[in-house]
Amino acid sequence: MDDLADLVAGCFSRDADGNATTGRELGVIPERLYQDWRSLIAAERGRIDFLAICTPNDSHYPIAKAALDAGISVMCEKPLAVSSAEAEELERLARRRRLVLGVPFTYSGYPMVKLARDLVRRGDLGRICKVVMEYQQGSFRKIDFSKPLDKRNAWKMDPRRSGPSCVVADIGVHGAHLIEYVTGLEIRKLAADLSSFAPGNRLDDDASILMRLSHGAKAVMLTSKVATGEENGIRLRVYGDKASLVWKVEEGNYLHVKEAFGPERIYKRNAPYIASLSDVSKRCSRIPAGHHEGFIEAFANHYREFCAALRGVEGCDFPQARDGLRTIRFVDAALASNRDGGKWVEL
Amino acid sequence: MDDLADLVAGCFSRDADGNATTGRELGVIPERLYQDWRSLIAAERGRIDFLAICTPNDSHYPIAKAALDAGISVMCEKPLAVSSAEAEELERLARRRRLVLGVPFTYSGYPMVKLARDLVRRGDLGRICKVVMEYQQGSFRKIDFSKPLDKRNAWKMDPRRSGPSCVVADIGVHGAHLIEYVTGLEIRKLAADLSSFAPGNRLDDDASILMRLSHGAKAVMLTSKVATGEENGIRLRVYGDKASLVWKVEEGNYLHVKEAFGPERIYKRNAPYIASLSDVSKRCSRIPAGHHEGFIEAFANHYREFCAALRGVEGCDFPQARDGLRTIRFVDAALASNRDGGKWVEL
Amino acid sequence: MDDLADLVAGCFSRDADGNATTGRELGVIPERLYQDWRSLIAAERGRIDFLAICTPNDSHYPIAKAALDAGISVMCEKPLAVSSAEAEELERLARRRRLVLGVPFTYSGYPMVKLARDLVRRGDLGRICKVVMEYQQGSFRKIDFSKPLDKRNAWKMDPRRSGPSCVVADIGVHGAHLIEYVTGLEIRKLAADLSSFAPGNRLDDDASILMRLSHGAKAVMLTSKVATGEENGIRLRVYGDKASLVWKVEEGNYLHVKEAFGPERIYKRNAPYIASLSDVSKRCSRIPAGHHEGFIEAFANHYREFCAALRGVEGCDFPQARDGLRTIRFVDAALASNRDGGKWVEL
Amino acid sequence: MDDLADLVAGCFSRDADGNATTGRELGVIPERLYQDWRSLIAAERGRIDFLAICTPNDSHYPIAKAALDAGISVMCEKPLAVSSAEAEELERLARRRRLVLGVPFTYSGYPMVKLARDLVRRGDLGRICKVVMEYQQGSFRKIDFSKPLDKRNAWKMDPRRSGPSCVVADIGVHGAHLIEYVTGLEIRKLAADLSSFAPGNRLDDDASILMRLSHGAKAVMLTSKVATGEENGIRLRVYGDKASLVWKVEEGNYLHVKEAFGPERIYKRNAPYIASLSDVSKRCSRIPAGHHEGFIEAFANHYREFCAALRGVEGCDFPQARDGLRTIRFVDAALASNRDGGKWVEL
Repeated sequence: MDDLADLVAGCFSRDADGNATTGRELGVIPERLYQDWRSLIAAERGRIDFLAICTPNDSHYPIAKAALDAGISVMCEKPLAVSSAEAEELERLARRRRLVLGVPFTYSGYPMVKLARDLVRRGDLGRICKVVMEYQQGSFRKIDFSKPLDKRNAWKMDPRRSGPSCVVADIGVHGAHLIEYVTGLEIRKLAADLSSFAPGNRLDDDASILMRLSHGAKAVMLTSKVATGEENGIRLRVYGDKASLVWKVEEGNYLHVKEAFGPERIYKRNAPYIASLSDVSKRCSRIPAGHHEGFIEAFANHYREFCAALRGVEGCDFPQARDGLRTIRFVDAALASNRDGGKWVEL
Repeated sequence: MDDLADLVAGCFSRDADGNATTGRELGVIPERLYQDWRSLIAAERGRIDFLAICTPNDSHYPIAKAALDAGISVMCEKPLAVSSAEAEELERLARRRRLVLGVPFTYSGYPMVKLARDLVRRGDLGRICKVVMEYQQGSFRKIDFSKPLDKRNAWKMDPRRSGPSCVVADIGVHGAHLIEYVTGLEIRKLAADLSSFAPGNRLDDDASILMRLSHGAKAVMLTSKVATGEENGIRLRVYGDKASLVWKVEEGNYLHVKEAFGPERIYKRNAPYIASLSDVSKRCSRIPAGHHEGFIEAFANHYREFCAALRGVEGCDFPQARDGLRTIRFVDAALASNRDGGKWVEL
Repeated sequence: MDDLADLVAGCFSRDADGNATTGRELGVIPERLYQDWRSLIAAERGRIDFLAICTPNDSHYPIAKAALDAGISVMCEKPLAVSSAEAEELERLARRRRLVLGVPFTYSGYPMVKLARDLVRRGDLGRICKVVMEYQQGSFRKIDFSKPLDKRNAWKMDPRRSGPSCVVADIGVHGAHLIEYVTGLEIRKLAADLSSFAPGNRLDDDASILMRLSHGAKAVMLTSKVATGEENGIRLRVYGDKASLVWKVEEGNYLHVKEAFGPERIYKRNAPYIASLSDVSKRCSRIPAGHHEGFIEAFANHYREFCAALRGVEGCDFPQARDGLRTIRFVDAALASNRDGGKWVEL
Repeated sequence: MDDLADLVAGCFSRDADGNATTGRELGVIPERLYQDWRSLIAAERGRIDFLAICTPNDSHYPIAKAALDAGISVMCEKPLAVSSAEAEELERLARRRRLVLGVPFTYSGYPMVKLARDLVRRGDLGRICKVVMEYQQGSFRKIDFSKPLDKRNAWKMDPRRSGPSCVVADIGVHGAHLIEYVTGLEIRKLAADLSSFAPGNRLDDDASILMRLSHGAKAVMLTSKVATGEENGIRLRVYGDKASLVWKVEEGNYLHVKEAFGPERIYKRNAPYIASLSDVSKRCSRIPAGHHEGFIEAFANHYREFCAALRGVEGCDFPQARDGLRTIRFVDAALASNRDGGKWVEL
């Protein structure tokens, strides 16, 4: 979208034909199309600026590790790994080798999320007391379980591919990242109640998680893949002692701020007053006000910052290894708490 | 509203002047105006059909007990009592003496809540998996804590008047009742995280409660008096394996039903198709479609059913002693769980 | 609701039995129950403070005239009459005899409509340029035209009972009143396009009306009884050069204000900041914030002001004969313009 | 977005530097970068598949004419021309030379608009009676008129660049196209009331237009650039005798259908049931449900169909010369009616 990167090499499928077709469609020349990631890294070492990893969860760690070992920066889909130990190693490796390791949590790329963070920082909400974070999907309710699962759902419910968690690792991590990104607070402890409601699913597909944040704040996360009728139900509410804010991705152009003593305000993407409130929110708006900006543009915002970091720019605003690691610790703690009957567990 | 009851006697204030003024405004003759509830019950025994108790929490039990002992039916504001032991005694007393003891939980009197219950009963949602119940208020954020509290807020934060719980006993009980009323399931266990965020408040003013319901369902309740900017944020969501429903009191004329495989539907109060879906929802609608019906009409619905019960009608649809008792057990369990670091506690 | 008036006498039906039943239900003693309005006025002259007229349109004028002639003040349902000539006579008569003649246009009794008027007066919107007024109903689409019409719809479509206009006289008048009430401007000219879409209906059931207001503003009214699926679709938008406002009766607790250069604001009924914005809006709020207030309370607000006017208070805020008359002129102009192919007609 | 077209040549600015910079950014080699459109057409004749015209209104006709004369197909921004005579000539020319002449009216490229058309065709709404089309913008209220106008606003208010109409030609044409696209009816006659509210503006910036459609339907269009606080307020309502539909671009993923006798339904983009309702709507959805799809994707949908037409595919679904021409007739009729005091004018 910003013409900052070219796709020059790749490996798109375990299936040779699929790999060839996708490669051709995406304009990758046959010489730089690889049958597996190992040969890709071996051959492209020193030739590419970064590698984007968009594979099932279990392969994130080995691929990212190999790339970093080969001196290649990485943009790795969430979750960064399937355990804290793996994620810690990747984070350390990137740091030690001074490589860029990004994790493109989509939603912190939205302009109104950036505005939310700026309003919190400026003190508009006062002291944060409570955060309610939801990520509700009904995707597992659209499955006909009398038939074999399609590929995508199959690996998400398979512990060998998905890792030990399904809903928390797949979408709960977005929520954990958003809480920390917007409030600037850290998740310290949690108590989790996980469920497996979809027929035959052995992993978690619904979770209710209570949290303690730094500075005495509390939070709740509700995330599900069996929330029938929900599409992409991301809803973030932050309650401070002066005001609260509400952001919903399905109405993602708007940010609601409710004060104790004044009328509710709706801030709108790319409105004339945004620039004075938040430079970054302004800069991350690409199309005219009144049109919806979302998914694709948010990715582009992250990639733009990531590319700047590759060029050595300091203080770029995109989710990095540390953010990826923190969300994996969140997943591990949730699994541990749930195993232990909902006990409070430190991250 | 339905001209089923006349106010003929009363005691309206500890203050003699206030009592006289209110009595006069409400058309009570001086002979039947009493300085305290004891003399009222003594003098009106056998002359009145029922007594309505609308006093601070701590006096509910003694007044209700005295009235029932005197053979007088009672409509008692929630919470029915400040402990399960008290509530159990009142429930037993009413049962043994065949008196009617009602607790007017406003929100189960709304037509669209009755429709929700009927849709659940009919199986439209399939098997219920998860319930999310919110009752978010920002009332304690509108207080200027540098001044003395007004009367209403003062007793709500005072353990001697309010009992051992503030937000859970005051509004959480509405939520507990709604969960059981709409789903027909019972709250069995809970784990609670209570907070006191308002300056100087020693009682709970924010609560996050995880629940196990009968038949394997789970629930979450979020309730608060420090949710800055919220007015009367009652939002009930019930997720079944076929469909989910959403009801919000602030848009209380509407009930949203979201199916896994069909478009979202919005049922509207008093619409032509309602009668075939729910007789009780139809009957509880009083004003034309498109106008808001609420608070006052919901009370009237409860009182109409209560008055029918006084006349001996069977199967009346209004919250009774058992409902009041169950919500007090909910409060007690929440307090116990919170004291014990969030352990799961049986009701 | 405010205990300012008692119903002491009446005539409730042309049918003697229906009259007796309703009278009994409403607590009117048989001696003061009359078989027709003529005998009522003759007998109650000097005994009652005012007469409320809630009959089909064609009888408003003769009853109101007789009452005023007998020295009785009148609260007359809209439309005040079926022609401007009649309405002018009533207005003149009330003025000359110093009687109070009210027309309870419900919607100007809503607190947020009063706030809207106060914000306009204070200059928050700047110079008003355009008003878009809608009153969309789908009631004529819920009729099964293969069966005889029910009583209410029958008289609304019958020119002898309803007068020469159906939708404009029945609900368009609410819109005309709201435009003038909120903006303080006068409707000067209009061009109307009326339709009869319901099967067999000879009167207008859908109207689109362009208007010129005083001070160079323009307005559009869209009103219909064949707008399938609409319930009580009153939506008022006022666009000024500094800000615009939106009010919808179906979300009647809220008033949206959108500025050119600031975030949208949502003012809420009975919120703490309302008092400083609008004393009258504050005073007309009766129940706690977050609950819906509407229809019944708006009538009560008008009656409270009407009763104050009966007691001789000056400057009461309720719709009077002049407001009723102006809306009848609006109806007459719409009919004339439509007859003449949509030509612009002065009021 | 679909990789169907490459930008190989262009002329991007009257200013040589700007032209060079933009050309470089867009990857056009200097040899195929032109200082004016005449040299571009002369040199690229026979080398390009089509020319996209995105210039101020007054140049649409001469550029499109020259391209068509040179045998080059054209995608021309709306309005196709500044008079019906010009538009007719272009339409005739394209037809005679069998070239493709597209006009990318964005909003008919939205999946939910295509679904709306399919539901109307299938008869879900019954007979269409009334259409209410709004396109409300507040852009002219964000201008500081004490300073010189920026380039974009300057040409929009300048009759020499913009043609004889501002708001009707600029955005009203979108509305006219949407009415005809969704309902399948034709605009036959209209009566228009145009205003110039922005300081110093000599062209129309606010319009209220009454219409007669084919088959006895009626329509109203409200369009404005001075509707303070509106962003991109496109709202289409179609009322049939069985049901009505509502689509708003600002909530463009959703289509509301309100029946006379059933609950309101909300159809959602890319939901599982959409495929059975509308093949085209399904095909035009590109990203997962619950994310916003809009502006950019709608253009891509039009271009995809346009490119198919270039390859000779029949029955492609994108706005063509005839659609462009009809909207110019709409503009001419609106100007004529307004000049003549709002008389009804045939298209």
